[in-house]
Amino acid sequence: MSDAVSPLAILFPALPPVAGVRLAIARARYKDWDRCDLTFVALDEGTVVAGVTTQSKCPSPEVEWCRAALPLGRARALVVNAGNSNAFTGHRGRAAVEAIAARVAQATGCAPSDVFVASTGVIGVPLPIDKAEAGIDAVLRAPEASWQEAARAISTTDTFPKGTAATAIVDGKRIRIVGIIKGSGMIAPDMATMLGFVFTDAAVAPGVLQRALNAANAATFSCITVDSDTSTSDTVLAFATGRAGNAPIEDEDSPGADAFAAALTDVCRRLAHLVVRDGEGASKFIAVTVEGAVSDESARRVGLSIANSPLVKTAIAGEDANWGRVVMAVGKAGEPAERDKLAIRFGATQVAEGGLAVDGYDEAPVAAHLKGQEIEIGVDLGLGEGRATVWTCDLTHGYISINADYRS
Amino acid sequence: MSDAVSPLAILFPALPPVAGVRLAIARARYKDWDRCDLTFVALDEGTVVAGVTTQSKCPSPEVEWCRAALPLGRARALVVNAGNSNAFTGHRGRAAVEAIAARVAQATGCAPSDVFVASTGVIGVPLPIDKAEAGIDAVLRAPEASWQEAARAISTTDTFPKGTAATAIVDGKRIRIVGIIKGSGMIAPDMATMLGFVFTDAAVAPGVLQRALNAANAATFSCITVDSDTSTSDTVLAFATGRAGNAPIEDEDSPGADAFAAALTDVCRRLAHLVVRDGEGASKFIAVTVEGAVSDESARRVGLSIANSPLVKTAIAGEDANWGRVVMAVGKAGEPAERDKLAIRFGATQVAEGGLAVDGYDEAPVAAHLKGQEIEIGVDLGLGEGRATVWTCDLTHGYISINADYRS
Repeated sequence: MSDAVSPLAILFPALPPVAGVRLAIARARYKDWDRCDLTFVALDEGTVVAGVTTQSKCPSPEVEWCRAALPLGRARALVVNAGNSNAFTGHRGRAAVEAIAARVAQATGCAPSDVFVASTGVIGVPLPIDKAEAGIDAVLRAPEASWQEAARAISTTDTFPKGTAATAIVDGKRIRIVGIIKGSGMIAPDMATMLGFVFTDAAVAPGVLQRALNAANAATFSCITVDSDTSTSDTVLAFATGRAGNAPIEDEDSPGADAFAAALTDVCRRLAHLVVRDGEGASKFIAVTVEGAVSDESARRVGLSIANSPLVKTAIAGEDANWGRVVMAVGKAGEPAERDKLAIRFGATQVAEGGLAVDGYDEAPVAAHLKGQEIEIGVDLGLGEGRATVWTCDLTHGYISINADYRS
Repeated sequence: MSDAVSPLAILFPALPPVAGVRLAIARARYKDWDRCDLTFVALDEGTVVAGVTTQSKCPSPEVEWCRAALPLGRARALVVNAGNSNAFTGHRGRAAVEAIAARVAQATGCAPSDVFVASTGVIGVPLPIDKAEAGIDAVLRAPEASWQEAARAISTTDTFPKGTAATAIVDGKRIRIVGIIKGSGMIAPDMATMLGFVFTDAAVAPGVLQRALNAANAATFSCITVDSDTSTSDTVLAFATGRAGNAPIEDEDSPGADAFAAALTDVCRRLAHLVVRDGEGASKFIAVTVEGAVSDESARRVGLSIANSPLVKTAIAGEDANWGRVVMAVGKAGEPAERDKLAIRFGATQVAEGGLAVDGYDEAPVAAHLKGQEIEIGVDLGLGEGRATVWTCDLTHGYISINADYRS
């Protein structure tokens, strides 16, 4: 965790326990620091798991391990290492993941494939097996940790811990969903993003959980970007212990399936927003809504083209109503667009429509909007019904300082 | 032109006249500045033209005007406006271009479609017709200008004027090719880039000139990026006056066709490099060579993924041998890649191969290489014969200052 907290930070909320989930943290000392950097989550027998992982062609061995275990749909433990991503480390990296799973499986009496592993930090340095094993031995003896302690322990360059919760009524029972997440830079999820972990006490079939997570991911994690750079370790896992006592959600028509999916999406969206709020160097939280596209996916791509544009992001940082840069970013997106149907607004103020600035355009309300911390950019392509909102932050000297001025 | 000159700047060379080409500059005062911002090039009767333009879906009316005129293959004049791109200005922008072409056509006795127009500067403000017309009247009376004066007059945020030349022997005659270019930010050409103008006295058929320019563009302008942002006004035009006296190059098998194409590519590559050397905030010139890809185009895309990565560019700015970020950028490119076949070098030093760091990797020579101004990153994907080199600059506080700290 960094010392200087993001100006967009949100106080960690009070989060309830989730039945069947027990947290612990320990010092594995993956870096030369005095903080907990190994997080262990014990999950009751019968816990179901779903997950989405990075589309990077250079995934970490942890990502490959999770991908292999996910089809089985069962989980008993999660280990998260912070300070070393173990990515691009060849056979040595694979051996480290296997050693962690084996150690946990032996100690807790489960199969290695029931143990999920995620790591975050520097790329290219094999995770030291001796430190990992000593850390696991310590964490298994550690007292129970809080959500906030776990959220801190999984962090790296994050400036504040991130977590959220929601509830839903399923089969007359109140079910809980709690999520924690880490991420600040190298954020441009393609299929998944960062390290995010969601826990629920709902009883839900693995296939339903996976499909609900896929849908939530598509509208949340896949719609944020800090810097257009996609991590080699992005992983979001959702665990369902089934301890809430509801009749299991067996398919999308089961009672409460919609409420559960909506609550899961809500948690994922709030987690995704927290990552953007901790974007490296961020001083503004930006929502880009694209409407009138030929499809939702096309709208998302146009939105990401705007959200990834260094010139748009620096203009927002400078509180500069430079809407021409939004035109530029729409134009370069490679998606269907017609200049003379394009409309753009900042906040509630229409600035351009029909291919040129609105008559009598007054920059004052736009300038006022840009002085705030929460910026809205609206684009209407005027072509169809496709719609998406993506979220990003501005690009400031802080980003350069974090990433250029010293070794990450 | 900015006051602070890029540390990567190159002195404007002595450039020869091109027979059939006459330059002049004037003050149209498109912005509140006291400098020449209107450039006029008179071209002898019989001049042939070819061009490539932006793939932006929001092109300027100048781009549309040039696209409509290019198939005719003839040119008698070029007008370049600096300080106002006239992009996204609807019917008022179109009217300005038509007024410029009409004024020049009337004064010089040619067709409006023989007049090519390009503009660069702020987006969204219609080019003032009165200033353009007064500027044209002034420039038609102005004395002949030098290449360097013209290169300055077409510039906006550029910190130094950019030009280069080459010669080739065609049909026993020495032909000349001279080019000037402007560009510093919003540089991520897709099909073309920025405003670039190439003049030759060679006699060459329009189709041959167009195909030679397309090929040169693909290997030069389309292989540079400063900030991944593609302009709405990108235009490169090549004019051939035919005054060298060579037997016209009628097709690619004509004597001297290869020499002409090679010289044209040489000029385009040098112009493209000059733009990167003036990238906003640039302190390092970076060449990224990707080999072993499944195709040349795939290699180019992987190279651009690396060259556009903010994390790679900030690492180079910080002289940080953070090769894991190169792995990340390969992984996110969406192109065929296999982590365990990937090899990476910085300068002459191999840092990783076969999916992990080389045994006994010594960072010292890499650190020394990164302290220089000319950085080489080499990636071998180990999959095929595809190869490309792309060029970019680093990402520094200077870029943020230029684009966020005051209105562009």
